[in-house]
Amino acid sequence: MSEPRKFHSVGTRPIRHDGLDKVTGRARFGADLSLPGMLYGKVLRSSHAHAHIRRIDPRPALQLEGVRAVITSADRPEIPSEHGTGGEGGPVDFRDLSRNVLARDKVLYHGHPVAAVAATNPRIAEEALGRIEVDYEILRPVLDVEAAMAPDAPLLHDDLYTRGVDPRPETPSNVAARIVIERGDTEKGFAEADVVIEREYRTETVHQGYIEPHAAVASTAEDGQSVLWCCTQGPFLVRSFCSKVLQLPISQIKVIPSEIGGGFGGKTTVYVEPLAILLSRRAGRPVKLVMDREEVFRATGPTSATSIRVRMGARKDGTIAAVKVRLVYAAGAFPGSPVVPGAMTMLAPYQLENVRIEGYDVVVNKPKTNAYRAPGSSMAAFAAESALDEIAQELALDPLELRLRNAVRTGSQAVYGPTFKAIGFVETLEAARNHPHYRAPLAPNQGRGVACGFWFNAGMQSTAAVNLTEDGSAVVVSGCPDIGGSRVSLALMAAEELGIPVERVRPVVADTETIGYNDVTGGSRVTFATGMAVIEATRDVVRQLCKRAALIWEVPVEQVEWREGEAHCRNGEAKDPLSLREIVRQAVRTGGPISGQASLTARGAGPGFGTHICDTEIDPDTGRVQVVRYTAVQDVGKAVHPSYVEGQLQGGVAQGIGWALNEEFVYDENGVLLNAGFLDYRIPVASDLPMIDTVLVEVPNPSHPHGVRGVGEVPIVPPLAAVANALFRATGVRFYRVPMSPPRVLEGLQSRK
Amino acid sequence: MSEPRKFHSVGTRPIRHDGLDKVTGRARFGADLSLPGMLYGKVLRSSHAHAHIRRIDPRPALQLEGVRAVITSADRPEIPSEHGTGGEGGPVDFRDLSRNVLARDKVLYHGHPVAAVAATNPRIAEEALGRIEVDYEILRPVLDVEAAMAPDAPLLHDDLYTRGVDPRPETPSNVAARIVIERGDTEKGFAEADVVIEREYRTETVHQGYIEPHAAVASTAEDGQSVLWCCTQGPFLVRSFCSKVLQLPISQIKVIPSEIGGGFGGKTTVYVEPLAILLSRRAGRPVKLVMDREEVFRATGPTSATSIRVRMGARKDGTIAAVKVRLVYAAGAFPGSPVVPGAMTMLAPYQLENVRIEGYDVVVNKPKTNAYRAPGSSMAAFAAESALDEIAQELALDPLELRLRNAVRTGSQAVYGPTFKAIGFVETLEAARNHPHYRAPLAPNQGRGVACGFWFNAGMQSTAAVNLTEDGSAVVVSGCPDIGGSRVSLALMAAEELGIPVERVRPVVADTETIGYNDVTGGSRVTFATGMAVIEATRDVVRQLCKRAALIWEVPVEQVEWREGEAHCRNGEAKDPLSLREIVRQAVRTGGPISGQASLTARGAGPGFGTHICDTEIDPDTGRVQVVRYTAVQDVGKAVHPSYVEGQLQGGVAQGIGWALNEEFVYDENGVLLNAGFLDYRIPVASDLPMIDTVLVEVPNPSHPHGVRGVGEVPIVPPLAAVANALFRATGVRFYRVPMSPPRVLEGLQSRK
Repeated sequence: MSEPRKFHSVGTRPIRHDGLDKVTGRARFGADLSLPGMLYGKVLRSSHAHAHIRRIDPRPALQLEGVRAVITSADRPEIPSEHGTGGEGGPVDFRDLSRNVLARDKVLYHGHPVAAVAATNPRIAEEALGRIEVDYEILRPVLDVEAAMAPDAPLLHDDLYTRGVDPRPETPSNVAARIVIERGDTEKGFAEADVVIEREYRTETVHQGYIEPHAAVASTAEDGQSVLWCCTQGPFLVRSFCSKVLQLPISQIKVIPSEIGGGFGGKTTVYVEPLAILLSRRAGRPVKLVMDREEVFRATGPTSATSIRVRMGARKDGTIAAVKVRLVYAAGAFPGSPVVPGAMTMLAPYQLENVRIEGYDVVVNKPKTNAYRAPGSSMAAFAAESALDEIAQELALDPLELRLRNAVRTGSQAVYGPTFKAIGFVETLEAARNHPHYRAPLAPNQGRGVACGFWFNAGMQSTAAVNLTEDGSAVVVSGCPDIGGSRVSLALMAAEELGIPVERVRPVVADTETIGYNDVTGGSRVTFATGMAVIEATRDVVRQLCKRAALIWEVPVEQVEWREGEAHCRNGEAKDPLSLREIVRQAVRTGGPISGQASLTARGAGPGFGTHICDTEIDPDTGRVQVVRYTAVQDVGKAVHPSYVEGQLQGGVAQGIGWALNEEFVYDENGVLLNAGFLDYRIPVASDLPMIDTVLVEVPNPSHPHGVRGVGEVPIVPPLAAVANALFRATGVRFYRVPMSPPRVLEGLQSRK
Repeated sequence: MSEPRKFHSVGTRPIRHDGLDKVTGRARFGADLSLPGMLYGKVLRSSHAHAHIRRIDPRPALQLEGVRAVITSADRPEIPSEHGTGGEGGPVDFRDLSRNVLARDKVLYHGHPVAAVAATNPRIAEEALGRIEVDYEILRPVLDVEAAMAPDAPLLHDDLYTRGVDPRPETPSNVAARIVIERGDTEKGFAEADVVIEREYRTETVHQGYIEPHAAVASTAEDGQSVLWCCTQGPFLVRSFCSKVLQLPISQIKVIPSEIGGGFGGKTTVYVEPLAILLSRRAGRPVKLVMDREEVFRATGPTSATSIRVRMGARKDGTIAAVKVRLVYAAGAFPGSPVVPGAMTMLAPYQLENVRIEGYDVVVNKPKTNAYRAPGSSMAAFAAESALDEIAQELALDPLELRLRNAVRTGSQAVYGPTFKAIGFVETLEAARNHPHYRAPLAPNQGRGVACGFWFNAGMQSTAAVNLTEDGSAVVVSGCPDIGGSRVSLALMAAEELGIPVERVRPVVADTETIGYNDVTGGSRVTFATGMAVIEATRDVVRQLCKRAALIWEVPVEQVEWREGEAHCRNGEAKDPLSLREIVRQAVRTGGPISGQASLTARGAGPGFGTHICDTEIDPDTGRVQVVRYTAVQDVGKAVHPSYVEGQLQGGVAQGIGWALNEEFVYDENGVLLNAGFLDYRIPVASDLPMIDTVLVEVPNPSHPHGVRGVGEVPIVPPLAAVANALFRATGVRFYRVPMSPPRVLEGLQSRK
């Protein structure tokens, strides 16, 4: 199915099914549910970034009228270290997860939960928090990732020994793991290079900045069955994680996903969800637990601050001769930074003979990081694509030309191992080179940068069902919350297969009981993998429709063909085509209702590549940088709903620009976050951004029946470097540190003089 | 599969999954849902039993502050007469349904809805009703079913011509239809009879008496998508009926069934549901519409009052020589009494050579009847089984013996046409004859009666899904609300097929979008038909489990066998069995999640027969009758959960005793119901009843993989006659009229003197 195919529904732009409810405010998000008799939960959080908990006494809180339950880690089973699969396929240690949800013995960051209460109203719950007595033994925190690697650094975990080094270290440290990717002989490569640069790059902790704080309502029946409503990217993951943390059978937890006001990877784990369940089990009443914005900043998972060193050598013709990289990623309080995908993706767009990438996962006294759109890649690409820009400049090569000379193509071996099937990286480079933007004139104080990016895209597990209704419409059931328009994209694929207008297809997101297992909405996998399941389920329905038509016509099923929403009889007899509606009308006598269903582990997620062009303008007096024009070119496989594909590109770029120019967690020396709110943690607003142009390159993914590949993550990979490269071209100053905020830019400009 | 089979789960008695929530009051019924911004709806009902509506002016109500919407039939599309399938498979005319939901031009019973309002609180809504101006032209009502057939009776519908008579009548009448079932030559049969009796029987309008009044909450989104929560036996039926009445596409309506506090057939149609949707569409806010008890009595569907004439002849040996029957059933305001099933079931237990049954469906100025447990059969059996008792007495035969001589057996042709497959009627008669109850001594003023009953049991359409969870439990998804324990019965069948404990199976009832089409919970069809779908879906899961085991073992799938929750390898190599849990643990790499699904039109619902023994005691001074002992024997095919099968038998008998002794709608001459409440409409309470003994005879239904046949309806068929026959044996007075309430019994006793 890799040949271009004529589509009638896929590729069109109908209004998304959840659109009207979302723009009119009717859609129900995590905090919008209330139940009769519901209690309000609040979480007591550590006021220190690093401390032993000597004692917690919840009794004074319990004595307050209206308080119905108080929980501390004493109320929760101790869990042995056990590795499982996290939201986007990475590893997770359930002991760490459990201790992040509620601290045991030690607090590891300012804001770390130590207790939770449920009371008849939020005011009482708040007051009760103040009555819980916690006796801390305060320890020195370590916040900087390089400092945390020092031998004399305060230790977060006295049982943490670096994995991936041989022999295993004899002393614990804050370095949780080391990984190495190596190919060829870098020393030989550097020896053959005509130009070699070595640079160090730093990025800060940044947050996904989703609009909706985490929220959960839990209700537990008398027989111990808990129902949890929450905003999440993965209701099945929440079910599984809560079952681990609370040591309950999975069958005792049902998760109903609400609409979700953004996640970007940040809603692929649990925070308040297990606490809400535990409180509801304790109190025998429903409990609502909603984070405020400050809690989101202080205690949910941002992405890593990093320290990256790159040594890169190239020959005169632009061939990259060798690359050597050291990546250090801050994981926050528990191991598990995205250093692995950072290392794997960093140089994935290029054919390299000699490369060595060493990565370190380091714990610090900040909140445990969590996935953020193309986890780990943006920072790595910032370093790699900035270095490439310097090489291009040294060799006086066009930066796109340099990339074209080294670009991976179909059949190339990726730095991280596998061989690429059909990919469209070169096509994005060529489209960028031919785009009017690339040749447009620039005004004074403006500069133009380019950068590229890569993301694997995920497959993972999906289940979907397709049910026909009595009037010939279809319901598409999935278990993946709709973040970026997946309802309509799944509906389009079903409409395509059925040959009916998409208006007659109704997509729904079910809970964890009414549909089979689904992995998270993340990894850019839903339209690809769940779409595959929807197509398979719909084809099952089409097979049944043909069988029913054969019964009605009394001909062998082989003579029936499905075209344009109708069964056609191939044999000589003249039979009028039977429409879906007509077949359904007769279903009761031909075998009953028609429904299809499919479950799969999706293989062959097509990797995605993007090439971005960015124009920046600098105010030399203030150091303020404005992005004045931006074009994102990306191979999207097949754009099922082009508007939402374009939206993904625009959204990723917007987040990348915020990360490049303004966003960062600012801590004081005690490890207290100073800018825990949207006034001080400045994500870009509309007026900060130009219209972001998009160019969709469509190289179909041969592993997907409609050619789909994931699109949501690639666009956040290039912007940090694209902005930095543009800024260099505008100012002659190379910035090695993100964010390139006005004070830092001004400092750079001054150093130029 | 008709051979007896060893079961490990089917036939056990676990606690039902909804049990704890229901006994502790946590279960959420129709009226338990509230939504933010919700309005309260009320219905204005006709204050006359028969009138033309000259004019309705809703404007004064709309002027009241807090009133957000008022609807009358002017706000609803006029619907052409169109016949569809009703809840339990009978016909329904959607024009009539629509006019029953909201009167157009004419009101046909006291309580007939004429308008509905939605307001910010119930008090304002109530006040608004009083402001709606309705100008009636009052007409003479007709309430009695025989009177309604008279040529000079007031006409309810001037376009109603009797169906089933040839030629079609030239004038309209209140007789909607005539049906005839005929076999052999009754005149010849009577000529050969040694004894012939001819009797007339009357029964009154009775209500199902479900605990929970009808309740609905509707919410409509900006794009016109309506969601309806309601207590119903058939969420898909509600969706379809609302779509017809409101002329909306089915895909615009989603129905979520609440728990249901009884239905007994009475919740297989719509009343407030379309009104709630229409009000919510008008007001742009959620609307809750809850009936009170009085509205339930005045304006929901009870079952027919009847007038039945039986002429029965028998030979000396007890062989029934001929039967001739005239059944007249009152349909209420619109055609559609259960006279057809009454006629079909009335003599179904017996092999008859000469029979003629004539049935009439007659409209009267009472609420439109609706299904009530074995619709139409109890009254018909009252007549048939009373007549048989008189024949037995005349011939001095034991009444069970008389029935045994005429009983249908496997292979007999039913009066209504088909040939019976494996049935257990004779077995119930023999079990009754051998039961200690039948030979127990009687005290003074006591008498013992027997009677038999028959019900087809329905198949119809069902869809079910089975989803395995990551920890090896299973979720069984159906679309049939659980009234009598169907969750646990479906779970037991799935556990049986999977070979795992039922505790690891979680049954859920889904909404109309997340599962494929399901017909109503009714007709005694769910455990049979939905059970069949569950078994088929589970077998699909088992096939997949075997396939996965084959992949893990790297053997052909033919070598894998599923036994006792484990895959076993048949081939010579020693492979340890793989448990379900272990296979699921490896699912991600063997093809993804495991789910199964099945849709079907269930064929071969095994008919059910019951034989009841009833002892009554009469208080000669007051006429009060007490049932002192009762034994219900029934062929139940295979009792999947014996406790709930026994509960069905006990519940049916309890309702039948109430019907026999006390229940009746009492109208004044203007057609106003005088006893619209549970104080005056007296259903039996616990102290009115003895412990009802049950004997489960198990003759497996060969069409069902576990031998299941429906059980819920048969038990309400014999009690009216069983009580009357017992009363005759106690008093020597034969009662031809139900209820045998104290005044009527006293009158009978006095006539004896």
